This record gives sequence, structure tokens and C-alpha cells, in this order.
Amino acid sequence: MPIPTIEWIGDADGRARIVEQTLLPGELKFVDLATIEEVWDAIKRLAIRGAPAIGVAAAFGVVLGLKGSRAASPAQFDADVRRAADYLASSRPTAVNLFWALERMRRCAAAVRALPLREARQALLEEARTILAEDRRICRALGEVGAPLVPDGHSVLTHCNAGGLATADYGTALAVLFRARELGRTFRVFVDETRPLLQGARLTAWELQQAGIPATLICDSAAGLVMRDRDVRAIFVGADRIARNGDAANKIGTYSVSVLARAHGIPFYVVAPASTFDLSLADGSAIPIEERDPREVTAGFGRRTAPEGIDVFNPAFDVTPSSHIAAIVTEKGLIEQPDAARVRAVLLG
Amino acid sequence: MPIPTIEWIGDADGRARIVEQTLLPGELKFVDLATIEEVWDAIKRLAIRGAPAIGVAAAFGVVLGLKGSRAASPAQFDADVRRAADYLASSRPTAVNLFWALERMRRCAAAVRALPLREARQALLEEARTILAEDRRICRALGEVGAPLVPDGHSVLTHCNAGGLATADYGTALAVLFRARELGRTFRVFVDETRPLLQGARLTAWELQQAGIPATLICDSAAGLVMRDRDVRAIFVGADRIARNGDAANKIGTYSVSVLARAHGIPFYVVAPASTFDLSLADGSAIPIEERDPREVTAGFGRRTAPEGIDVFNPAFDVTPSSHIAAIVTEKGLIEQPDAARVRAVLLG
Repeated sequence: MPIPTIEWIGDADGRARIVEQTLLPGELKFVDLATIEEVWDAIKRLAIRGAPAIGVAAAFGVVLGLKGSRAASPAQFDADVRRAADYLASSRPTAVNLFWALERMRRCAAAVRALPLREARQALLEEARTILAEDRRICRALGEVGAPLVPDGHSVLTHCNAGGLATADYGTALAVLFRARELGRTFRVFVDETRPLLQGARLTAWELQQAGIPATLICDSAAGLVMRDRDVRAIFVGADRIARNGDAANKIGTYSVSVLARAHGIPFYVVAPASTFDLSLADGSAIPIEERDPREVTAGFGRRTAPEGIDVFNPAFDVTPSSHIAAIVTEKGLIEQPDAARVRAVLLG
Repeated sequence: MPIPTIEWIGDADGRARIVEQTLLPGELKFVDLATIEEVWDAIKRLAIRGAPAIGVAAAFGVVLGLKGSRAASPAQFDADVRRAADYLASSRPTAVNLFWALERMRRCAAAVRALPLREARQALLEEARTILAEDRRICRALGEVGAPLVPDGHSVLTHCNAGGLATADYGTALAVLFRARELGRTFRVFVDETRPLLQGARLTAWELQQAGIPATLICDSAAGLVMRDRDVRAIFVGADRIARNGDAANKIGTYSVSVLARAHGIPFYVVAPASTFDLSLADGSAIPIEERDPREVTAGFGRRTAPEGIDVFNPAFDVTPSSHIAAIVTEKGLIEQPDAARVRAVLLG
């Protein structure tokens, strides 16, 4: 079983418990988040990260946000819910699962607003737990849908971490690899270290090692050489937001990987739950891209490695055009050569 | 004037003085190398690096290797020279300038072997100093030849450090930018940080900053996004060895940059002195690629950032095929759309 990236302890007065991912792989430590502010902070500083896991965390965050509520009317309850959701929405801009989960919590709140406060809060906790349980099932479904794409006896490459630590279960892109392994396929995974925060080196390498899947860590810049010389037959990555034409935002560097894959004739797969799609956006150009602290680049490891005063461009994500994507693996099935019609057909059909 | 990356202090009993590049940009420290072993170590651990600078260091290394010589005959002198050169040749395998400089020192030694030992050693010192002086002139010539390629009013991108710190003067790829700046062109330089050892962040960003050229530091994986969105009109990189068909070995990641440049229709320029060409090699497949300590990837910043026991692939270089190269800038002129005939025509014609 994967380690529980996030879970809820207790009743509606309880707390969320997460893996403190900034300490991995050196230390596997669980921390409790007892307030909405602690959830916001944990999302912001990537103590919990990965689009699906951020969604679950935000849902629990709403429950925590109502812990101190003294709402005496449905209108006051609405206001408390809105305040909590708006606050959590300001933590990170790109992963749409965050907004999707908050929207579900808002809808749940609207349905229970007339109940006594204690019951309404309990209903919100149940909704958050349902989101978590659904994410578990979705991870498994992604694994089933994607596993046949893993080339038996060859190598694959992945970027960032789309594993168990990014979800409530065993991941999105990595779920495909874990499932293929369970089905007896043998393969090696080249893992981009994924600067600046090294989620590949710290998290993906660790998860694959735990699962007994042969893995080789590389610098991001070695991906081209590895694709040319090391028998890489497929690329698997996650996504943080997918527009309705299939353009997919994911960790910075994913776009470069997609260009390299295309140049080497290697199929590039995006693995993501339906909740990652933002059907309100026609294409990827409208996806907001978070820019993060320059110090992630200039002093990412506690030691300054660039001159003071240097200008830095540190986007957390980039957008891969759907034309570079061989297929999007969703829990509802495979969207091959994605475009608006095929996305709609699989998600809504 | 650029800072003196390497110089010689004193007579044939003197010592080489280098910038300790591993401490940059935090500290600009000069260290003296008084023995051949210290030169070997400085090359190995990248205290001095960059193909042309390695060549100069190796030449001074031969002089230091003969400091304790008690050769009483030309044959003994030959043996001492051979031992010194063979030892220095074992420091790093890829940059051909190292072997080129050692070959020049061997030829000089052969010419002066019959002289009294003291005079022969003095002659070797003069030869090493000539190599250094030539490198200075070559840097200036590279700047002249390449500067017209810098797009006025737009941006360029570079990878690793091919600046003053990589040479005896103001660089190869960066010489082109420094010269373009002197000629009044305005442009921004996107600087790949260049994992694992961050020569881009530590050295190139610092050199550009010193020169007053607008520079923006990025993670290597952001190069694709920057090429797509940030008005990059040319790529300039150095080289460590170029085969006779124009295939060019350079810092790991250069190949990926060349693929990305091609995909975005951006001309990719290699800037290197004639001494970087290895005409004994038909193409880049025969260039030996150094693999370095996995800890550069797993604990490159003094803190472990990957799980213990993880497999690592850490090549120091990769090879860019000549078909990706718009032109090679040499001190003898521009080799456009390089192939074996055009390389020969410019270098030997």
C-alpha cells in the first residue's frame, strides 16, 4: 500500500494529517494541520503538492475553516464557506483540481446550509472524505487504463512527481507504472530530477525505489541524450490543468520533454483524472502559470549558487500543446491524439 | 579587462595561478598551483574548467612536471616529458584542447631536448605562455567573427559557461556577446543554470552581470518555454571537442538545447577555437564522454536530495550533431551549415 499522503483524523473537529514532503527522502514525517491557515501554508510551500492531493487538501481545508464558525443562519454559513474557499483558492493558481475540489465543497455547503451547524460541518467532512476516496479509486483506474502503454522490456521517462505523494493513492503517471509492474512488465524508468525543487530526485526516485522498479536519476538536461541513446519508448507525466482542446499544464520542463520526445519519435502520455480538465478554457494559453520565489533557483539548497541581484525567471509550470501528446490517460478511458472533440467524447460521452 | 583565469608567476621554477572557480560567485579567490599534481587535481575537480583554459593549464602543468627533473640526457628528458603529459592527459577525457596543448608541449620538448635542462624547461614555459597569449588573441577573434550574429534588440540563450573563466581572455560563446555589446548591440541573455555543477548560474550569470549585459537566469528545463515565448533569436554555446564533420561535444544538455532550438526555428551557434577540432574523428560518435560522480546529482549542494542507493546517470557532456548547428564560429572564420568539406575549407583552406 502507498503511504497515506493525506488523511483525516477524528470528526469534524479533527485535523488533516499529511506527509511533510519537503523533508523527503531524508525523513518520512507526518504533520497535522489543525487550521485552515496551516493547510494554506502547506499547499503554498509544497509540503503537500501534486494536483489531486492539493484538491483533497483544499477540501479538508474548508472543513478546518469552519471549525471556529459561529454561523447562526444559512447566510452566515454561506459567508464562512465562501471566506474559507476564497482563501484556499489563493494558495496556488495553476492546478485546477484545487478549484474543482473547492467548487464541490461549495456545492455541498449550499445543499446543507439549512442544517444545524454541527451537521452541516459533518456533511462537509463527509464530502471531503468522498473526494479522497474517489481519488483512490481514480488512481487505480488510471493504472488500469494506462498500463498497456508501458513498453515491456524497454525504458520510459518521467518528469516531476506524479506518484502516490501527489495523490491520495498511488499516483497518476506513476500509477500506470506501478500497475504495469504488478502485471509483470519489466522496464526501467529514467527520472528527471526536476529543478528547481527536485521532486523527481526527492520523491519519484524514492517511490520507484520503494516499489522495486528499476530507476535511473538524471539531470533534466540529460533527457535529450537519454531519449536518443537509452531505449526510451514512452514518456509519462501528470498534469495540473488541461484545457478542453487537450493542452496540458504540468511542471516546468514538461514542454521541453514533449518537444524532445517528438524529435525522437517517442510517444508522450499525460496521465490525469477528469478533475484536471478545465473545460472553461479553449486552449492552454489561458492557463495561469504560477511564478515562484527566485531563491528556489539561486539558493535552492541552502547555499547561494548565483550572484546577488541576478534576474531570475522561475515559472512553476509550462503548457504542452495537445499536438505533442499521443494520448491522455483518464479514469474514463484513453483520449488518443487529443483535441476538443475527442476530449469531450471521452469525458462527457 | 576580464579577470585572469590562469597566469604564470615567475620563471620556470615558478607556479600557475588560477581563479578557484568552485567558490564563485560567492568568493573570487586565486590559488597557486606549484606542482603537476595540483594542476591535475584542479582540472579534475573543475577549479579550472572550460576547454581552452584546460589546455593552458595542462601546458603549465608540463612545466611544473619538469620542475624536479634531474634528466641528464635527452632520453631522460623525453621520459620526464612523456610522464608529465600522460599524467595530465588522464585528468579529463572529453575536451580535446587538453590533448592539443599537451601535443604542442611534446613537440616543443622534442625540439629542445638537446639543450641544457634549464634552457629546455625555459623553452617549455615560453611555449605554454605562447599558448596562453594565443588563446587571448583567439578569444578576441571569435568575438569579431561572431558578433554580427547577435540579434540587436532581441534575446539570446546560452548553456554552461563559455566565458572568460573558460579561457585565458573573455571567452568563446560569451566573447561573441561581449564583443556585440562593445559594438553597441542591446540584447538579453537567458542563462541555463546548467546542472549538475551550475556553471551557468555560478559563472556565466556572474560574468554577464560584471559586463553589464542584461541576463536572466533559468532552470535548464525552462529553456523550451523561454524559446517559445521570450523572443530568443539565437543560441550561443562553446564546445569541448568537434569532430571533422562538425558534430560538437559540449556540456550535458547542449544536445537538448539544440533540439529545442531546431523545433523553434532558432539558429544554434557553436563558438570554439580551431584547437577544439579533432580532425582524427569522422563524427561525434567517437568522442569519449566523461561520466562524473553521481553525488554531483544526488548531493550537489551539500545536502542529500535523492534516496540512498538510487542509480544515477551523470554524463558531463553530450554531442550535438552538425545538422543542428547553423554555424561554427572559429577564429579562422564562420563555418556555416558545417559538414566535413566546409570544416576543412575554413580550418585548412
